[in-house]
Amino acid sequence: MTSPVRIAVVGLGYWGPNLIRNINEHPGAEAVMACDLRTDALESIGRRYPAVETTTSFADVLADPRVEAVVIATPVSRHHAMAAAALDAGKHVFVEKPLAASAEESIDLIERAAAGGRVLMPGHTFLYSPPVMMVKQMIESGELGDIYFISTSRVNLGLHQSDVSVAWDLGPHDFSILRYWLDESPSHASAMARGCVIPSIPDVAFINLEFPSGAVAHVELSWLAPSKLRRTTVVGSRKMVVYDDTSSEPVRVFDSGAVLPNPETFGEYKLTYRTGDIVSPRMEVAEPLYREIEDFCDAIRTGSTPKSSAELGLEVVRMIEAVDQSLEQAGARVGIESGAPAVA
Amino acid sequence: MTSPVRIAVVGLGYWGPNLIRNINEHPGAEAVMACDLRTDALESIGRRYPAVETTTSFADVLADPRVEAVVIATPVSRHHAMAAAALDAGKHVFVEKPLAASAEESIDLIERAAAGGRVLMPGHTFLYSPPVMMVKQMIESGELGDIYFISTSRVNLGLHQSDVSVAWDLGPHDFSILRYWLDESPSHASAMARGCVIPSIPDVAFINLEFPSGAVAHVELSWLAPSKLRRTTVVGSRKMVVYDDTSSEPVRVFDSGAVLPNPETFGEYKLTYRTGDIVSPRMEVAEPLYREIEDFCDAIRTGSTPKSSAELGLEVVRMIEAVDQSLEQAGARVGIESGAPAVA
Amino acid sequence: MTSPVRIAVVGLGYWGPNLIRNINEHPGAEAVMACDLRTDALESIGRRYPAVETTTSFADVLADPRVEAVVIATPVSRHHAMAAAALDAGKHVFVEKPLAASAEESIDLIERAAAGGRVLMPGHTFLYSPPVMMVKQMIESGELGDIYFISTSRVNLGLHQSDVSVAWDLGPHDFSILRYWLDESPSHASAMARGCVIPSIPDVAFINLEFPSGAVAHVELSWLAPSKLRRTTVVGSRKMVVYDDTSSEPVRVFDSGAVLPNPETFGEYKLTYRTGDIVSPRMEVAEPLYREIEDFCDAIRTGSTPKSSAELGLEVVRMIEAVDQSLEQAGARVGIESGAPAVA
Amino acid sequence: MTSPVRIAVVGLGYWGPNLIRNINEHPGAEAVMACDLRTDALESIGRRYPAVETTTSFADVLADPRVEAVVIATPVSRHHAMAAAALDAGKHVFVEKPLAASAEESIDLIERAAAGGRVLMPGHTFLYSPPVMMVKQMIESGELGDIYFISTSRVNLGLHQSDVSVAWDLGPHDFSILRYWLDESPSHASAMARGCVIPSIPDVAFINLEFPSGAVAHVELSWLAPSKLRRTTVVGSRKMVVYDDTSSEPVRVFDSGAVLPNPETFGEYKLTYRTGDIVSPRMEVAEPLYREIEDFCDAIRTGSTPKSSAELGLEVVRMIEAVDQSLEQAGARVGIESGAPAVA
Repeated sequence: MTSPVRIAVVGLGYWGPNLIRNINEHPGAEAVMACDLRTDALESIGRRYPAVETTTSFADVLADPRVEAVVIATPVSRHHAMAAAALDAGKHVFVEKPLAASAEESIDLIERAAAGGRVLMPGHTFLYSPPVMMVKQMIESGELGDIYFISTSRVNLGLHQSDVSVAWDLGPHDFSILRYWLDESPSHASAMARGCVIPSIPDVAFINLEFPSGAVAHVELSWLAPSKLRRTTVVGSRKMVVYDDTSSEPVRVFDSGAVLPNPETFGEYKLTYRTGDIVSPRMEVAEPLYREIEDFCDAIRTGSTPKSSAELGLEVVRMIEAVDQSLEQAGARVGIESGAPAVA
Repeated sequence: MTSPVRIAVVGLGYWGPNLIRNINEHPGAEAVMACDLRTDALESIGRRYPAVETTTSFADVLADPRVEAVVIATPVSRHHAMAAAALDAGKHVFVEKPLAASAEESIDLIERAAAGGRVLMPGHTFLYSPPVMMVKQMIESGELGDIYFISTSRVNLGLHQSDVSVAWDLGPHDFSILRYWLDESPSHASAMARGCVIPSIPDVAFINLEFPSGAVAHVELSWLAPSKLRRTTVVGSRKMVVYDDTSSEPVRVFDSGAVLPNPETFGEYKLTYRTGDIVSPRMEVAEPLYREIEDFCDAIRTGSTPKSSAELGLEVVRMIEAVDQSLEQAGARVGIESGAPAVA
Repeated sequence: MTSPVRIAVVGLGYWGPNLIRNINEHPGAEAVMACDLRTDALESIGRRYPAVETTTSFADVLADPRVEAVVIATPVSRHHAMAAAALDAGKHVFVEKPLAASAEESIDLIERAAAGGRVLMPGHTFLYSPPVMMVKQMIESGELGDIYFISTSRVNLGLHQSDVSVAWDLGPHDFSILRYWLDESPSHASAMARGCVIPSIPDVAFINLEFPSGAVAHVELSWLAPSKLRRTTVVGSRKMVVYDDTSSEPVRVFDSGAVLPNPETFGEYKLTYRTGDIVSPRMEVAEPLYREIEDFCDAIRTGSTPKSSAELGLEVVRMIEAVDQSLEQAGARVGIESGAPAVA
Repeated sequence: MTSPVRIAVVGLGYWGPNLIRNINEHPGAEAVMACDLRTDALESIGRRYPAVETTTSFADVLADPRVEAVVIATPVSRHHAMAAAALDAGKHVFVEKPLAASAEESIDLIERAAAGGRVLMPGHTFLYSPPVMMVKQMIESGELGDIYFISTSRVNLGLHQSDVSVAWDLGPHDFSILRYWLDESPSHASAMARGCVIPSIPDVAFINLEFPSGAVAHVELSWLAPSKLRRTTVVGSRKMVVYDDTSSEPVRVFDSGAVLPNPETFGEYKLTYRTGDIVSPRMEVAEPLYREIEDFCDAIRTGSTPKSSAELGLEVVRMIEAVDQSLEQAGARVGIESGAPAVA
């Protein structure tokens, strides 16, 4: 059996302590260090996990030979600088989503990781969530038929981020899920948004995405909503699925769809619908973050590519950038580059 | 007391019989004639309402001096020709929504009605629905504060229309409601759509609307959905409302919103939320169609302008045309004219 | 083809007009007469159905040779006298539920019907409702396994009945459904109730029923509730079903239940559960009242026994009487007779 | 400021670790010892809380002079013996609900605590839950009017207890809430139950309770259900409340009820209803267990009587015993003693 991956966690805000907990629960990982500028956050971790060394110095983290991998859970504006430094120090790097603040930064990180033979993985946790994985399996197996469109609402009544728009804050969730499900990046994006509370920071956004296969997706993101809503509808030619992360039945499959009548009668057609059962399949209970950590450690120990790969992370960043571009151009339809960068 | 308005109903498809029932129930109206090409539809009406004369000839309807007003419930492609003929024959005209198949046709009808001193009214029934009226009152009274944005989903598992897109079929509902609530027409529209089942006929559409006041609206329309959904969220600076026509609590008011912190601390602000009660106000029970018929008869007898005015109907048609235009231009942002036509 | 059964409807309160409508819609039935003491109710029916003769005289109904069958939709206190008179006049009789105000009265009606060779049928409409029939089929086929228990809540925010308790008003629904599903009458009943608004008239009741097979049922009935609730849970050894008449998914099947562990370890057993999918089966849309009328006409024309038989109606009355008896004895457990009366 | 109460937690099953976590989070309490026979449970606690001493010997706990108070979270059959020993050793005692396995045992504990001047507190955690406290306040303030009846369903899809019936397992929750809300103990109980899976252990029970004020309550308890349900309806003469612990709106207030018409017209009355708004009041977020620990520590330090008092705990045990008695007597109505025991 391989030894646990020794990990330092940098950034102890909302998500950092969750990462440490899962790292410590996983037999293949071990949290050896925690780093933050706020000493109270460090003390709190120190009390709970006496075996974790705490420090305010990121340089100490990089210098510590015990540390094999660094988990970066700081604001996105710091991702590139810290991840680059960690990769250059020979560490494997896990960065909270989004991978970086631009495609350019993301590509730079990918190149550094490739050059040093290190793992670089963005934390798109939803890819490890059982309902998301179940829908993926339904799409891949053809159970849903051709994917006509996907419509998703992710609206919150939570705290505003102070430094990024709602597209940078909430977009990575849906963008990574769409990328994973459809196994392709969108070719075009367009968006409308408004900064309701702070005019310069969009807090509601309506985003259209077009995919090469013909599928289209609409993503509604908002920090201003009467109640939390996570509802994604996947409409396929054979079946439809509603994925609702807040429900006790997170995946519901609808065996119904329009049946095309005989083409000759198209002049006066009336579509009829086959309508069938609705099924809420039994869902495995598993903590996505635990599996994500596992995927990271596997990549380090076995050389596998994590499901939440750096390339997927780059494509997510490109989608967000396309949204920003569209917003700057009054909602214009913007092309999106795809594919991995050429790594020399 | 004035005598009941004697009405002929033309078109006995899905909606026509509902119109006849409400006309007959209202003391201010009287259905005297029903017209359709399908004799079985006529017979069915004749059995139920022996006092209603049935005919397959629209010319007979126009020629009958008893008929004061004509209600047109035929496919939209027939609206202009029939309404124009009826107005020219001196009849008051009620046309099922949308008013006509183009702004040009709509303006022509408005001009004919003005020239002949006749009432022309499109049937935007939702303007008479108690929940829609309650939200209107909340917006007008300032209870919701400034309207930040409105997001609405109207998705069906119903029959496809054979002759029009989902924007022409379902759009008039939301467009008329938005126009009524916000008391302004949008200045710009953009849209993404797809014809999933019949490629040439969009059956799903995602529509953005921008209003002069700064409010934005998003309208999702679809015939292809796992289940019926009518959910409209109105987010104001003071309160938020969810209007759901399928719920036993069709209006829910959320006393919560972001509280702006002291502007000086904007650099590092964290918005805090005031969160309060959720209220489902008691809702009056009334059939909107009954009140719509009443408004039509009042306009005829008293010269009042109906809430669902021809001018509002024209603006709704302009919105749909703007959606079509945007779709032809790959989702481009399209300007929308507003205001009544100059009537000589 | 046989000629339609010519029916007179007596009692034009809430339910009578529904009966007339369904009789007229069914090709095997024909409403020829309507009888009520209130002339306005008669006029309203006359306007809607010009072919239906109206009268205030029940004697006229009985004397009319055209009338083959009488549908009685009057208060329960009048059921016996009117049904007896109609049977004696040679008419087939359909009585709204409950069949009569006592088991004694019910038996008397059964005997008169048998003596005269006439159909006597109580209107337990729920036996013709698609969800109720679907659950029946699931029980009968063994899909649910042994029936452990059934728990049902039928609570209303409706008008109080002025002459009967909630057990007489709402009990017949659940009692007839239970009798139909389990194919047996309960052997014992006990009940707690309270007259909250009018102390002498119980408006909330909690009723226990024990069946010979070992199944137990609990029935909660109330006119005083925050919102309408119709929720019946059927727990079987293999599957469980929730039947909710107010839901768009009226039957939901849960493939889960306790799995008995190895009996040897009973000393310290922990039950484990198999948990599986949840299925909302596709439900046929049909108006139960239409099918009930059909069953009545079939019984008249073919001699078949209606699903809602007089014997079932008698057993329902016995259950209600047992509830009354238990209430008089401070909730004591009361035995219930079952089986048809001996008809000489 | 007073020093934290030094507490030993005995029993590290499902609930014990929660108790330790809350004790450690509360500044007024300190977990100094954890005791269980299973060394793996001790090790797990030791890893998480290095400051907590672990032991398999209850005698060591009692002998340790640092230990001021003992929290007992063992099966109910062990409550009396362990609590008695702890009280006799001069410790304050918190016992998980129910207080003991019989009223006799409970009285004995109360007498020992009184004799030694020690706090004895059963862990009826729901009394510290914000929604339960809010409903209590509504009842006490008269907002709901007279309480007509309370109907509650607590059904689970959880593990069977191996040693007690569903009434002993789930009953304490509802019984303590009812006792707290109504501020009186029931005078009578009756019950129907069935052991569906293990015939000797009731896993579903329907329980009726009558209170001196005239209020009645029905409690449905079950381990066998398609889905978790916690729904309590409180019907008062002025308002009604639905309390649902599984909902994001755990308390909903319905401003509706029957309005008594003029008594003179009682002969033919039709009750009319005033119907009003539905309000989901804003709910404070607080962990009930934290507050319960606080109440225990306050009682120790200040001599106050905890809300979850030993007397309330005794009355809860009497209710469960009355249910058992009723079941032994085929559902007979059984009287319940109330009031504190005479303490010499």
